[in-house]
Amino acid sequence: MGHLMTEPPRFAFAIHATDGAARTGEIAMRRGVIRTPAFMPVGTVGTVKGVKPADVRAAGADIILGNTYHLMLRPGAERMARLGGLHGFMGWDHPILTDSGGYQVMSLSDLTKRDENGVTFKSHIDGSRHTLSPERSIEIQRLLGSDIVMAFDELVPTTSTPEVQAAAMARSMRWAKRSRGAFDAGGAHAENAAIFGIQQGALDRTLRGDSAAALIDIGFDGYAVGGLAVGEGQEAMFGCLDFAPGQLPADKPRYLMGVGKPDDIVGAVERGIDMFDCVLPTRSGRTGQAFTRTGPINIRNAKFAEDTGPLDPGCACPTCATWSRAYLHHLVRAGEMLGAMLMTEHNLYFYQALMADLRSAIIAGRLKTFADAFRSDYKSQSERE
Amino acid sequence: MGHLMTEPPRFAFAIHATDGAARTGEIAMRRGVIRTPAFMPVGTVGTVKGVKPADVRAAGADIILGNTYHLMLRPGAERMARLGGLHGFMGWDHPILTDSGGYQVMSLSDLTKRDENGVTFKSHIDGSRHTLSPERSIEIQRLLGSDIVMAFDELVPTTSTPEVQAAAMARSMRWAKRSRGAFDAGGAHAENAAIFGIQQGALDRTLRGDSAAALIDIGFDGYAVGGLAVGEGQEAMFGCLDFAPGQLPADKPRYLMGVGKPDDIVGAVERGIDMFDCVLPTRSGRTGQAFTRTGPINIRNAKFAEDTGPLDPGCACPTCATWSRAYLHHLVRAGEMLGAMLMTEHNLYFYQALMADLRSAIIAGRLKTFADAFRSDYKSQSERE
Repeated sequence: MGHLMTEPPRFAFAIHATDGAARTGEIAMRRGVIRTPAFMPVGTVGTVKGVKPADVRAAGADIILGNTYHLMLRPGAERMARLGGLHGFMGWDHPILTDSGGYQVMSLSDLTKRDENGVTFKSHIDGSRHTLSPERSIEIQRLLGSDIVMAFDELVPTTSTPEVQAAAMARSMRWAKRSRGAFDAGGAHAENAAIFGIQQGALDRTLRGDSAAALIDIGFDGYAVGGLAVGEGQEAMFGCLDFAPGQLPADKPRYLMGVGKPDDIVGAVERGIDMFDCVLPTRSGRTGQAFTRTGPINIRNAKFAEDTGPLDPGCACPTCATWSRAYLHHLVRAGEMLGAMLMTEHNLYFYQALMADLRSAIIAGRLKTFADAFRSDYKSQSERE
Repeated sequence: MGHLMTEPPRFAFAIHATDGAARTGEIAMRRGVIRTPAFMPVGTVGTVKGVKPADVRAAGADIILGNTYHLMLRPGAERMARLGGLHGFMGWDHPILTDSGGYQVMSLSDLTKRDENGVTFKSHIDGSRHTLSPERSIEIQRLLGSDIVMAFDELVPTTSTPEVQAAAMARSMRWAKRSRGAFDAGGAHAENAAIFGIQQGALDRTLRGDSAAALIDIGFDGYAVGGLAVGEGQEAMFGCLDFAPGQLPADKPRYLMGVGKPDDIVGAVERGIDMFDCVLPTRSGRTGQAFTRTGPINIRNAKFAEDTGPLDPGCACPTCATWSRAYLHHLVRAGEMLGAMLMTEHNLYFYQALMADLRSAIIAGRLKTFADAFRSDYKSQSERE
């Protein structure tokens, strides 16, 4: 006699298969399903640079990332709310994860004050003065209409002393609790949104464990591994990922922030990570670097001037289906916008195809075979030159 | 009992209706039909800047223009031929018209020699030395795989004396004969291509008439009105167009080179012009200017920061269907590539929609009504501010 139409859940993570520490599954949210392991293209200031939203989606992206820092400065959080939120503004109706703004404040702005309340800084665009605290970061992410809101945390240089690292982790946990409280107070789009906590503690197993325990005590929809991919190198990062994801709840998504190179992603998936974001495919696309299964190539290289083959022979993207390396070489050398557009689109397809292959390999229980073959084929530019 | 499939003609112009001096029809060529009056987006260096070929086509373009000067320098004509020609290279399988290179040589390069044979110049990119003559220009256009090849002519400043203008026209007619001869000698894609002559003679009715007679004596597939839209102003240009098109054969397409603003096009169609090209829709798109039925708007203007309406309420383009003025304002202010992409695509649609409206108005015999209404609605930026 018919069936009840049920609304999609606010946030539900289902693991379909595991293979060693790796997992594949789906996060169901109001605005769509996120297949994991997932790669999130970065839509810094309300656009995945150089690619229309429909083409980002066609490449296979289920979710993109928006930067709170960039958007709070331009067009501004309250203005964005008046305009109906980020989704309608940029024409992307699938989930959006927003970061807390903390990382860009440290790396891009002129920081004028940092204390237990939060940070005060000057905009890198016009020098205007702004503050971010756990409460204000969550409020901004609400105003943007974010689907996955990140807790606001404190970052310190990786070269800091253990004492500074420990103090920053402890403050980040106090800020995580304040972030959760601000999130629970509701606001715009509250019925759609989830919130993730961020594990800190640098490369120290004990600090990481203490951080995980504090976050679990607060309780989040998902957990990020923060503070990695900041110059420590792949070996050190993998060393940390050998224990850090296991300290976080197995039944919640684990998100490795700001990662990374294709081989970083493969190794992190093997270690239990479910979500990634990185500017590499988009930024590389604008500087003439294309990702291929045998490693990155720089299309500006003179050897491509009369190469009629596609960027990557195994790729099914529109760029590879239509245009030659010779054409892309020409466009990039001539400084033509279309070169950046087509290279970026290819790179987004490459990353999404890699994620699809990782998901299939986990389902099939052959992740190690896939990962070993990937590593055997994939050479960094320095390895090949 | 079935029917014979006939190959499309090399070049056949059919006029379907006239209205005063205006005409509408079709040019049938091997690579496709060109509906006239036609607007050709400019694909300077092998790309309509910032727009994929499929989107240029979706906007309604039947033909685009390629610049011989830019393409001979980069990637180079012989290289382009080795790569299979411009169509496959850039992924555009409809007709392409190439200019002769003469105009850019005068405006962009460092001209070192000019005599009866042709011109010698230094590249604006790397200072390398090149020559262009009627024979070499036609050869390059052949190597590019052009569908409509333009005769090579000599341009002199509009401020030149009548004697200089007359001498340049006379030389251009000698070069037109050499261009026709080089074209008739065959070469790559000869079976697909047509050749247009270019009428010169500045604003002088007698010189224009002599030029037209010389071109008709040689015989071309179509005839361009050259040497206009170079700073003489709309009134002077229309004054010339009151007689110049009528001096050219009525049964061949007439192409007004480098024109123009929307109101220039409307007035030129009323005076019997069938084809246009101009960088205005693409260049304006990259600088934040959008064309609308009430005139151009600069999307950077602060008044658009929270304007949730489309660029042009009457427009059916993907940009207007999806994004607001507020979003485009944000993108252009933030220097985001996507802003230039979406603005350019809108402008291409605007131009093609205008051409479609002009064709419909001619068919319906109400061109004057349409043109008067257009002029009444369409205000230049200076008229409105």
